[in-house]
Amino acid sequence: MSQKRQLKLGFMLHGVGMGWGDWRHPDADPTASTSFAYYKRQAQLAEAAKFDFLFVADSVFITEKSSPHYLNRFEPLTILSALAGATSHIGLVATLTASYSEPFNVARQFASLDHISCGRAGWNVVTSWLEGSAVNFSKSSHLAHDTRYRLAAEHLDVVQGLWDSWEDDALVHNKASGVFFDPAKLHALNHKGEFFQVKGPLNIARSAQGQPVIFQAGASEDGKNFAAKRADAIFVHHENLDEGKAYYRDTKKRAAGFGRDPDDLVILPGIRPVIGSTEEEVERKYRDFANLTSIENALSMLGRPFNDYDFLQHDLDAPFPDVGAHGANSNQSTSRKILETAAREKLTLRQAALRFATPRTEFVGTPEQVADAFQRWLQERGSDGFVINVSLPKEFDVFVETVVPILQARGIYRTEYESETFRGNLGVPVPPNRYATSVAVAAE
Amino acid sequence: MSQKRQLKLGFMLHGVGMGWGDWRHPDADPTASTSFAYYKRQAQLAEAAKFDFLFVADSVFITEKSSPHYLNRFEPLTILSALAGATSHIGLVATLTASYSEPFNVARQFASLDHISCGRAGWNVVTSWLEGSAVNFSKSSHLAHDTRYRLAAEHLDVVQGLWDSWEDDALVHNKASGVFFDPAKLHALNHKGEFFQVKGPLNIARSAQGQPVIFQAGASEDGKNFAAKRADAIFVHHENLDEGKAYYRDTKKRAAGFGRDPDDLVILPGIRPVIGSTEEEVERKYRDFANLTSIENALSMLGRPFNDYDFLQHDLDAPFPDVGAHGANSNQSTSRKILETAAREKLTLRQAALRFATPRTEFVGTPEQVADAFQRWLQERGSDGFVINVSLPKEFDVFVETVVPILQARGIYRTEYESETFRGNLGVPVPPNRYATSVAVAAE
Repeated sequence: MSQKRQLKLGFMLHGVGMGWGDWRHPDADPTASTSFAYYKRQAQLAEAAKFDFLFVADSVFITEKSSPHYLNRFEPLTILSALAGATSHIGLVATLTASYSEPFNVARQFASLDHISCGRAGWNVVTSWLEGSAVNFSKSSHLAHDTRYRLAAEHLDVVQGLWDSWEDDALVHNKASGVFFDPAKLHALNHKGEFFQVKGPLNIARSAQGQPVIFQAGASEDGKNFAAKRADAIFVHHENLDEGKAYYRDTKKRAAGFGRDPDDLVILPGIRPVIGSTEEEVERKYRDFANLTSIENALSMLGRPFNDYDFLQHDLDAPFPDVGAHGANSNQSTSRKILETAAREKLTLRQAALRFATPRTEFVGTPEQVADAFQRWLQERGSDGFVINVSLPKEFDVFVETVVPILQARGIYRTEYESETFRGNLGVPVPPNRYATSVAVAAE
Repeated sequence: MSQKRQLKLGFMLHGVGMGWGDWRHPDADPTASTSFAYYKRQAQLAEAAKFDFLFVADSVFITEKSSPHYLNRFEPLTILSALAGATSHIGLVATLTASYSEPFNVARQFASLDHISCGRAGWNVVTSWLEGSAVNFSKSSHLAHDTRYRLAAEHLDVVQGLWDSWEDDALVHNKASGVFFDPAKLHALNHKGEFFQVKGPLNIARSAQGQPVIFQAGASEDGKNFAAKRADAIFVHHENLDEGKAYYRDTKKRAAGFGRDPDDLVILPGIRPVIGSTEEEVERKYRDFANLTSIENALSMLGRPFNDYDFLQHDLDAPFPDVGAHGANSNQSTSRKILETAAREKLTLRQAALRFATPRTEFVGTPEQVADAFQRWLQERGSDGFVINVSLPKEFDVFVETVVPILQARGIYRTEYESETFRGNLGVPVPPNRYATSVAVAAE
């Protein structure tokens, strides 16, 4: 059998669902966002289906207008640490903002999760695009978009530098001589930069996969270059395959431009499948989900990437309104995509709100149709895989039971994990320790 | 049977042991500090023995001179989150410094652990006494002792304020009407203080125990007042029962002075038992542990509370040297205790180093002798219980198998957990939500 290129799959782990009204579905548990039992079941199901990783999104600012998904939920590092003990192979990717955290604390917590899970941690590096976030962190204002990315790059420099504090063979543990470690293989970082001054060393060694996997989700120019240069994997959103292919080509080329092997960077669009056994069932399920979100809630969701812009002030059935610069220092890429789509397709405000609240994509269909879409995106290089986001836990069961076996039968998705570590399964290299002068001997 | 006062017990969870040379013992696993399997076994043993809580200490600064225990270990919140999923009743107390953390992040992570564990989280609030810590957090110098405590008090104000963001009946989850929560019961904090400005609200609700349990370990004047006013439990160290009784009286009186019921504050000295079936075995085991630590390492340990003061420069067999003000802005209480003891007992530097490296207390003895000591401290009000710290995992097995049954037979220690929550077992009250205007109805 030829070695076919394989899909990499992540599962977006959340409680009440990211659609505003998902929690209202008769099958939804509205308390799921803080239920460990619920998270554990979902995580174990994803692992049984041989998913590469669990992905937990995040934000650090809410108001009473926020969507239910944002209001009350677990913090990513703590819930993924809890799940580390309930799983054995699946990767654990936590979102954490570089804008409002100390690199020393971030380096430690991810390294600790990486040890707890025996080499399965990942960090989705974000810069936080809600301007309101600053007020929860003793800051008078949110940093400008380009400054945020400069800060994030330096933050990541510090974190990755701290992760290399201990060479892989530094801990010798010689009981007879009393030598616990080799001081020549413990390194202070002595970082002195624009935003951070961090001496080190870190008080935890490297893990089985060397360093946690780096995810990046930015899609602006700043974000794309940051990802192409620094990330092991990219989480992105596309409207269609053509957009996906253009992004894929562009990003792999940027990676090569930074001197990297483009295959070492995995591109994973987020999708929200709706699966029915017949086309009639697909239609009914899609409409049921769409109807759970009121137009008011759809407008609130639309406003979020525009820094919580209030769209209610505009005529619903007039052409999409002029919102000025409201998206510029917030979620640049998403707000721009909404504006472009609305202009191109001449959408009214109502049409745009409903379209983005409940996306209707080629991943809405029967199991065969959805599997065909997966295969098309993989083979035409629109992506290296996907991050699956479902509105209801039952929908994940359906995906695992109906789509996964088709992908496996076609030889484009694994039936067993290839490796014990996240990097090993995802197919991205272990970064060598920057201080190592020779090939390190693995510690016993 | 009369309702006797009950001992509360915590277990100090660590890897290689806090004695410098513990890892060299033939029975020690030198890799234990980053072994989840090891931590899990210890945690489950403590829970089987009905301990109130696991306690994880912390520090955020190492040098190549640091003790093996500090060099390479798990970060407390991540390892306790992982253990939350492997236990069901035992409390989970993580040490975290207020000096180098954002209150919003701290509030979230502890609240998240509290939900994951269904009401078993605790925060040991520390201010970090190693001056070196500042260099890992982009700070030019460590804060002065009194400023650290002012900052810690304000930090805790913010964290506890954020924990009350949601009233207990705020989340109504009405699917029919589409009302997820009652906006009148979600509260922004709007904190504007000397050190922090935090708006809120927090994006996670209160847990089954209302708020995580607050521990405090400071024993300086600043620390004692902070603890008596704000803590649910105090972790402290004493030389002997007389010192314990004086501290107990003083602290409970301070608590009453702050308008609190003294019984709502639990005082728990840390002890390091060494148990043998005969007095000969006790002697042998104690000597074996003492001999694992060289005089050089004992001097390094002695130097730590004096801000890593280098004692090697002094004559080992001369009277304890004058060290100037080296302890004043570091660990005030421990450095002062060492100076006082050395002066009172006219110790040489060598004698002082060995004595503090391997303490010889009334908790070194046969199971009956150790149980007698527990009972004496409880009944004479030297403490409300203890935090048990062992040098080797095997020693914890011995404690659980030999001392615990005696305490249970005497009716001064539980045979079953009384409650599902940490507060319920520890016997400290659930703090009412500060915004609640009437008795909240428990959410369904």
